[in-house]
Amino acid sequence: MKAEILATGDEILTGAVIDSNSAYIAQKLEEAGIEVVRHGCVGDDVEAIAAILKEISTRADMAVVTGGLGPTLDDITAEAAARAAGVELVFDREAMSCIENFLKTQGRDVIALNKKQAMLPEGAECLFNSVGTAPGFVLRIGRCVFFFLPGVPSEMRRMLSDGVLPWIDKLQKGERSFSLVKTISTFGLTEASVNERLAGLTEKFSGIKLGLRARFPVIYVKLYVRGKDKKRADILLEKALEFVFNKIGECAFSADGESMETVVGSLLRREKATIAVAESCTGGLISHLLTNVPGSSDYFFFSGVTYSNKAKIKVLGVSEATLKKYGAVHEETAKEMADGARRIAGATYGISTSGIAGPGGGTNEKPVGTVCIGIATADSVEAYRLNFQFNERLRNKIIFAITAFDLLRQKLLKHKGKASETH
Amino acid sequence: MKAEILATGDEILTGAVIDSNSAYIAQKLEEAGIEVVRHGCVGDDVEAIAAILKEISTRADMAVVTGGLGPTLDDITAEAAARAAGVELVFDREAMSCIENFLKTQGRDVIALNKKQAMLPEGAECLFNSVGTAPGFVLRIGRCVFFFLPGVPSEMRRMLSDGVLPWIDKLQKGERSFSLVKTISTFGLTEASVNERLAGLTEKFSGIKLGLRARFPVIYVKLYVRGKDKKRADILLEKALEFVFNKIGECAFSADGESMETVVGSLLRREKATIAVAESCTGGLISHLLTNVPGSSDYFFFSGVTYSNKAKIKVLGVSEATLKKYGAVHEETAKEMADGARRIAGATYGISTSGIAGPGGGTNEKPVGTVCIGIATADSVEAYRLNFQFNERLRNKIIFAITAFDLLRQKLLKHKGKASETH
Repeated sequence: MKAEILATGDEILTGAVIDSNSAYIAQKLEEAGIEVVRHGCVGDDVEAIAAILKEISTRADMAVVTGGLGPTLDDITAEAAARAAGVELVFDREAMSCIENFLKTQGRDVIALNKKQAMLPEGAECLFNSVGTAPGFVLRIGRCVFFFLPGVPSEMRRMLSDGVLPWIDKLQKGERSFSLVKTISTFGLTEASVNERLAGLTEKFSGIKLGLRARFPVIYVKLYVRGKDKKRADILLEKALEFVFNKIGECAFSADGESMETVVGSLLRREKATIAVAESCTGGLISHLLTNVPGSSDYFFFSGVTYSNKAKIKVLGVSEATLKKYGAVHEETAKEMADGARRIAGATYGISTSGIAGPGGGTNEKPVGTVCIGIATADSVEAYRLNFQFNERLRNKIIFAITAFDLLRQKLLKHKGKASETH
Repeated sequence: MKAEILATGDEILTGAVIDSNSAYIAQKLEEAGIEVVRHGCVGDDVEAIAAILKEISTRADMAVVTGGLGPTLDDITAEAAARAAGVELVFDREAMSCIENFLKTQGRDVIALNKKQAMLPEGAECLFNSVGTAPGFVLRIGRCVFFFLPGVPSEMRRMLSDGVLPWIDKLQKGERSFSLVKTISTFGLTEASVNERLAGLTEKFSGIKLGLRARFPVIYVKLYVRGKDKKRADILLEKALEFVFNKIGECAFSADGESMETVVGSLLRREKATIAVAESCTGGLISHLLTNVPGSSDYFFFSGVTYSNKAKIKVLGVSEATLKKYGAVHEETAKEMADGARRIAGATYGISTSGIAGPGGGTNEKPVGTVCIGIATADSVEAYRLNFQFNERLRNKIIFAITAFDLLRQKLLKHKGKASETH
């Protein structure tokens, strides 16, 4: 079954609101084994909506349409649907009692505007809305079964699961297929080189579809499989996953699409280790990411965001001599920062960053994009100097932070002596 | 001029990624006086992309297409465009040198896959990409001028402003109507109550279009005006702006759509004041936001992200007795944290947060969503206790951080004695 999704509304068309409904609906339909082939969006305009409904009715087996079912004047989706189907709007008793019931639970009265919401295209079947006044409806136009839902995300979601998905099960009868997806998170390779390394994958594993998705600076490898035999698909996916890990090597850090900070957190937790951070150029981002993970207080103790040299000396115990001799952006300073944070907090590991995020502050020797990263343990302190060329303050902060996490991750993996621990 | 927007990519079609590009493009086109009439999305499928390009070419005057310009095999937009236009892909020297130049700045070599990116439809004109390898291109198909841009938001945004918008200016020639937009940032009111307070605005100022846009937890009020007489429009906009500030009061913190951290930074700078932070539940987010603003090192000295009580005592000098008597989440603790950070860093202001971001850690007395915020100056230390009901860790961190900024902002404004300073 091929499906399309249509969002209606000026607020989406003009970009005032980002359409999150269509992505949600697409996911749910894909999970139900329906192939989504197109999304669309038009404004609050009867002609425009009717036109696109007609187009869809010649292409798709089913469609989900959101928006324009409210009580106000610019809610005109039912009228457009009637026009596309070549029928009239008629008063629907079931829709009216659905509206009355909902208003009753809210202690509110039915007003004239609500009655408009009970006018559905002739032949439509009402879809119950338990969380709002706007009833949805199902209507066949041409070869396509249309499900019309409100645009309010919470109402749409509820009606999709209560009303639409069971209906789809019926439409699919015994023929139901399913789709599986696996996401591998990678860091350290460009999209092009991930792709190059995975050349031959789709030929080797027929039935697997490959997709890459970049969310700076992480590249996600997505493996999709669709079919009727779930067991066979599971085995295929498992083998393709192994192929990916072999090709990507230690740049692959999660087989479940996890974030870098989640993976580092899990490794720390597994080792019963704790962490303290000293941040200069990352300005708190490392700690922010670490503490986005629920339960991170088990292993994260302290971060000193020391933007001024005075704070580096006073809080982290960096020596004035080191700062004078080498400057703030230097491996030696990074080492003392990492070690200082670790000692103060009594943590297993200390990591630090000192660098130049830009746009100002660069020199010939230390251009914008330079970062020194320190990692301290009870036994050793190491530091690395790297340079990135993103030329944008926030991007630099992000790449500095994720690189620091990745260096710690590699260390934690070596410590366990098993590079396969993340899988 | 009528425009359409098309997003391509399986990740968007299947709902793995929410398409934020189309909304962004729609806004920019609307601001340039272009009428956006439809959005669409199809997957990484040459036939499907070519088909929808052909449809658009019969309806629209211009179109912006995103995605599928990368170096990998599933990047097939150029091929689809060539097919829709009935031309061949040809090697484009300008595109190749654009790719080479970018890779050079990254210290990377051109690989075979990059050469694929220089194959453009015959007759296409290359659009320079200064922030990635994928050059875009402009191609006329039928009556429609298509702008093809990469799907990576940062690259798309840069190329839209550098390449597409100037081109559109040329397309519009003398007939150009213009559109102005003004964005007021507000914090502390719900979208519904902002809407309620601004009732009557569009009737009072005929020609002004009002849009609200929520980007948690800030509600942006957008005022649009479109026309040919710029002077008249400027005056109208100025009057409508005044109306908005009168109705929203001190919840409006910027007339230029600035972020809260930018406004707080400007106020600190104007006062030649400096700041230090002590963060518990916000986990580094306050410092991260402060340091996202270029030049923030002029006024931001230090943040102690003290997740453990030990760090609160050792680094910030919070007294053990206070922690024992009141606990970590308490006004008294917040006061000592703010004052400690301020003293250590020698800053004008100290602000602190201690609270429960969740999902765990809540009690009956201090449920998830509770935060204590301290503000210290040389003369005084204040603390506030608030509770929010967002029930999501990251949302709680964000609302805690922005609330702390807002309390400081109000203090800075009162200090200057002029509430109009932000305008």
